[in-house]
Amino acid sequence: MKSFASDNYSGIHPEIFDAIQRANNNHQISYGDDQFTKEANTLFENEFGNVQVLYTFNGTGANVTCLKCCTLPFQAVICSEYAHILADECGAPTQSIGCSLLPIKTEDGKLTPEMIKPLLNRIGNVHNTQPKVISISQSTELGTVYSIKELKTLCDFAHANGMYIHLDGARISNAVAALGVSLKTATVDCGVDIMSFGGTKNGLMIGEAVLIFNESLKANAPYYHKQTAQLFSKNRFIAAQFTALLTNNLWLRMATHANKMAHLLANEVSNLPGVKINRSVDANAVFVIIPEHVIQPLRAQYPFYEWDAETHEQRWMCSFDTTEEEVKEFAQALKQVL
Amino acid sequence: MKSFASDNYSGIHPEIFDAIQRANNNHQISYGDDQFTKEANTLFENEFGNVQVLYTFNGTGANVTCLKCCTLPFQAVICSEYAHILADECGAPTQSIGCSLLPIKTEDGKLTPEMIKPLLNRIGNVHNTQPKVISISQSTELGTVYSIKELKTLCDFAHANGMYIHLDGARISNAVAALGVSLKTATVDCGVDIMSFGGTKNGLMIGEAVLIFNESLKANAPYYHKQTAQLFSKNRFIAAQFTALLTNNLWLRMATHANKMAHLLANEVSNLPGVKINRSVDANAVFVIIPEHVIQPLRAQYPFYEWDAETHEQRWMCSFDTTEEEVKEFAQALKQVL
Amino acid sequence: MKSFASDNYSGIHPEIFDAIQRANNNHQISYGDDQFTKEANTLFENEFGNVQVLYTFNGTGANVTCLKCCTLPFQAVICSEYAHILADECGAPTQSIGCSLLPIKTEDGKLTPEMIKPLLNRIGNVHNTQPKVISISQSTELGTVYSIKELKTLCDFAHANGMYIHLDGARISNAVAALGVSLKTATVDCGVDIMSFGGTKNGLMIGEAVLIFNESLKANAPYYHKQTAQLFSKNRFIAAQFTALLTNNLWLRMATHANKMAHLLANEVSNLPGVKINRSVDANAVFVIIPEHVIQPLRAQYPFYEWDAETHEQRWMCSFDTTEEEVKEFAQALKQVL
Amino acid sequence: MKSFASDNYSGIHPEIFDAIQRANNNHQISYGDDQFTKEANTLFENEFGNVQVLYTFNGTGANVTCLKCCTLPFQAVICSEYAHILADECGAPTQSIGCSLLPIKTEDGKLTPEMIKPLLNRIGNVHNTQPKVISISQSTELGTVYSIKELKTLCDFAHANGMYIHLDGARISNAVAALGVSLKTATVDCGVDIMSFGGTKNGLMIGEAVLIFNESLKANAPYYHKQTAQLFSKNRFIAAQFTALLTNNLWLRMATHANKMAHLLANEVSNLPGVKINRSVDANAVFVIIPEHVIQPLRAQYPFYEWDAETHEQRWMCSFDTTEEEVKEFAQALKQVL
Repeated sequence: MKSFASDNYSGIHPEIFDAIQRANNNHQISYGDDQFTKEANTLFENEFGNVQVLYTFNGTGANVTCLKCCTLPFQAVICSEYAHILADECGAPTQSIGCSLLPIKTEDGKLTPEMIKPLLNRIGNVHNTQPKVISISQSTELGTVYSIKELKTLCDFAHANGMYIHLDGARISNAVAALGVSLKTATVDCGVDIMSFGGTKNGLMIGEAVLIFNESLKANAPYYHKQTAQLFSKNRFIAAQFTALLTNNLWLRMATHANKMAHLLANEVSNLPGVKINRSVDANAVFVIIPEHVIQPLRAQYPFYEWDAETHEQRWMCSFDTTEEEVKEFAQALKQVL
Repeated sequence: MKSFASDNYSGIHPEIFDAIQRANNNHQISYGDDQFTKEANTLFENEFGNVQVLYTFNGTGANVTCLKCCTLPFQAVICSEYAHILADECGAPTQSIGCSLLPIKTEDGKLTPEMIKPLLNRIGNVHNTQPKVISISQSTELGTVYSIKELKTLCDFAHANGMYIHLDGARISNAVAALGVSLKTATVDCGVDIMSFGGTKNGLMIGEAVLIFNESLKANAPYYHKQTAQLFSKNRFIAAQFTALLTNNLWLRMATHANKMAHLLANEVSNLPGVKINRSVDANAVFVIIPEHVIQPLRAQYPFYEWDAETHEQRWMCSFDTTEEEVKEFAQALKQVL
Repeated sequence: MKSFASDNYSGIHPEIFDAIQRANNNHQISYGDDQFTKEANTLFENEFGNVQVLYTFNGTGANVTCLKCCTLPFQAVICSEYAHILADECGAPTQSIGCSLLPIKTEDGKLTPEMIKPLLNRIGNVHNTQPKVISISQSTELGTVYSIKELKTLCDFAHANGMYIHLDGARISNAVAALGVSLKTATVDCGVDIMSFGGTKNGLMIGEAVLIFNESLKANAPYYHKQTAQLFSKNRFIAAQFTALLTNNLWLRMATHANKMAHLLANEVSNLPGVKINRSVDANAVFVIIPEHVIQPLRAQYPFYEWDAETHEQRWMCSFDTTEEEVKEFAQALKQVL
Repeated sequence: MKSFASDNYSGIHPEIFDAIQRANNNHQISYGDDQFTKEANTLFENEFGNVQVLYTFNGTGANVTCLKCCTLPFQAVICSEYAHILADECGAPTQSIGCSLLPIKTEDGKLTPEMIKPLLNRIGNVHNTQPKVISISQSTELGTVYSIKELKTLCDFAHANGMYIHLDGARISNAVAALGVSLKTATVDCGVDIMSFGGTKNGLMIGEAVLIFNESLKANAPYYHKQTAQLFSKNRFIAAQFTALLTNNLWLRMATHANKMAHLLANEVSNLPGVKINRSVDANAVFVIIPEHVIQPLRAQYPFYEWDAETHEQRWMCSFDTTEEEVKEFAQALKQVL
């Protein structure tokens, strides 16, 4: 089964798999005090500069760990109405921290200072939860990508108002591949305080990394990490995957390919009758409206998810292992059912 | 480096590794709706009968998920003073649930109804947290194993007083290997309501399983599992490991071997001067008091942890991959430094 | 200083004050096991039938206690975007319970099944928090009152979908006075499961009561009440106030008067140039848009709060102790500054 | 009914009652922005110097507010095994904050550095909750009083190890009356960081005050206070009581009297056969072992609580309104049933 359902339907990239195999070597000290973890930490420092790295099992674990590091129970996290932390984590951030989420309506999944300004009047009013974090996803849940300028503007706005920037980077590789800059330029240099660096959706078997840049967030982080049940006894097996991911730009090779496949897919179908590319294809997602009657027959051949049951907008995701041939077959299948 | 520090220093058993490799096959539906997960579920049902299975990343994740399923915030969990949930999880159960832990002093790590009875007078008093769960570890953190009779007595006592039995089974395979009965006989047939089935310490790369037997605990469990950040998008890679673990009794073969190595180690050193086997060697742990001056030289060759800094009691753990030769070399090394 | 700022600016009604004085009589058993509490409980039963009563200190304490009784951490509370639990309690319900709040847009502060239906597709999806409670305020934060029919329709809808109805009754007396029915007819007979009965805003010095009608919510309630820091050692002093409130319909006399004053105020100003009564005056609140230049001069004489800084909608609240003369003076003052 | 059960069985002192009556004066700004609250704040500053004051409804509310101000979810509060926060609040601190409590065995209810030192090895170990607060009760739950020297030693120890001192001052007036120093000398001058100042057990109708001395704990406190449901809309009615309490040393007059009655009671019964004063009578509590057969007949006349069901140790509390005559009658009653 090949699908355009989600980048988490894909398997393990061979270079990642080899890294797991190499890490399966005799006994190693547990809980991250091993050589494989040290090696991965060094590669992260090479990419990002001065950074504290904590490895987590999944995106929810990474997001909760990040938000715990920068939020007290009376504080609030500002996010898009589409944010994974709001829409897809069964309330984990709220339940784990006690903080509130303040969702913001947005057409393209991206936040701007203008959208957030009305919430600033909460500051100092004890009857209101206090905005402390602006949480963004890069790329967003709608497949769009913040530009460097947009990021800097938002980070500056956050800091000017006593807030942190949390970046949910489940698909940060796809975003950075699209931006064509370095990881560092696209994150810490813009002013990001804390982020997750996604692995699971970009070729890893398992693993995300929490990256902390802001010095004031570092001291308590290991305790929050442990208490969130994200400290892995055999951490070498996650760390080794990240070493492979950061070696020879594997993260970039995979993300660039996935993005390219999404563009190809959009191009292949954009002129078909009744088909409308509905969002900017910035990374590896294609949001598309197709006629209702073709949904089921097409999905029977290639699974995918409906994003909006009212408009029949579909979400098609490309992965590191999506092939040009598959894209063309999928486009062909769409033509036939149309 | 070979060590007697912890069973989580060990790597991946080859049969487990092969299972990961086989699961790395094309795209699969995420979040556990895949064939590999269904297959593992079936094997668990073959072993335990009617059971709900939830896969988790680590022991803390499994314990928190279990305790969330059976505890409300005003309730309390009774446990041994040595319990992992109390001593080693940075307060995760308490923080995640809001419940209190009520530790009980115990010489051998095992709880009995007599120890718990004094806490029953809390029941019905709104000023006190309400005991709702008795949490036991099998094998215990002191390397001891509850007998079937002890388990049944404790389960009956719990149920007679409106409480659940939670079993922390990080090392349940070692305990069941020691008891020489089936997994079902040693758990659900004794009256256990909910438990974790450990993988990481018995040859898996990663993974524990939450097993729920009590019908009343099943409905809410998937939500608690998700909210605890334990639902894995690529769950096939954990499930496949459990399929291997439950195939041809791999769990039993590994645990039996680890236990055997612990007994061999105890036998090799028990008659040495100044060496005292300090706890019953029931499973794969040897708790031993050795003269202070030999600790550092011995640990320099084979890492291990000091259990008690005052008495200089050491904890030596054997794993599925501990060899007879290593045990004898270690005993020999001890003789030489003595 | 007399004001139209809030019904919580007012003092203690003389009959309530006398009740406090009478309760100050020798020693009494603490924590609600006293005669004054029993007496108040009986009066509540006379009004509402079979009901469990828990006394609390304030509205936030009452709301948190209520929501704890009917919500697990993975569940969600549906409420209006104006709900006190969402807008005015610094996140207390969310922080105390772990649940999420799902706000709904509404013009008049009232919820209908149609508004809630889109949220039903969350049910059964582990990635979403699960709607379990519909929380309404009666009268609403916009001064409107649900009709009996609206209440029944909403309660039936909630129960048909496995949800509870929580009623924030900080101003329930004003609502019931407006409806012209009995307390029982307006609450439990409509299907309300759990509610608060407000005292502080209707003549009490201090105190709210949690009233639980649904049998399944009663057993755990005393523990949630205690854990929310709402169990009062000298509870006789709150209970005695409720006894006075429920004697000779004091609750109704005060609420009827406050409502009457609000209607009088609306009538006095509704025809003035530039003045627009902006919401239905159902209870004791008048929401009114007035020209920007008169706000400060008027407020200097009679404090009140601006509800909406953009539209310059003001909120004028009447209390049990608002006099006809004060209303007319206030209207006169408005005429003069216009 | 007069009793020796608890100081919370007593009523309202006449000077306190008059203060409530005086505060019942027209409309006042709500939520503590009123003149009565300002007046009480000033009196607290006169007593304690630079202090942030937050008024709460009860002792649990005060303790939870205090501990929220100084504890993060991965941290722990060290306390006596008898501490109210551990034994009598249904787990409220743990549930509300997520922190763990680390109870310490103590004969006299008082903590010393020596008892706490073994917990310091937790510091820096991510598997352990991190000790951050030493919480003491003054006077203790066993009726004993820390000396100034004991307090200073403990505060210095706490600060030297990066911890705060929280003082549960439900009976601080009785302790300070016993010490014969000023409130300031007995608290902030010893190094206390944050404390509650009890009112309910010393003649108030309702109310405790949270007093914050440590500058670093002040900024977030109002939000924690609100979120703990302890911000009172009609705060003037609590503040006015504290104004009376701090006027003409009413707090000291009442506490001195209660202490005196306890000493009188101890003296009256200490030589009776089978009667043993079991703890140092430092404040207003007498802990006494009496023969089992006299408990019920004596309690039928004057209610009191059994402290220890095994040793038949009883707790007799004296209040501001306990009279010399009542003490002598009670002692006489004991003689007769002996």
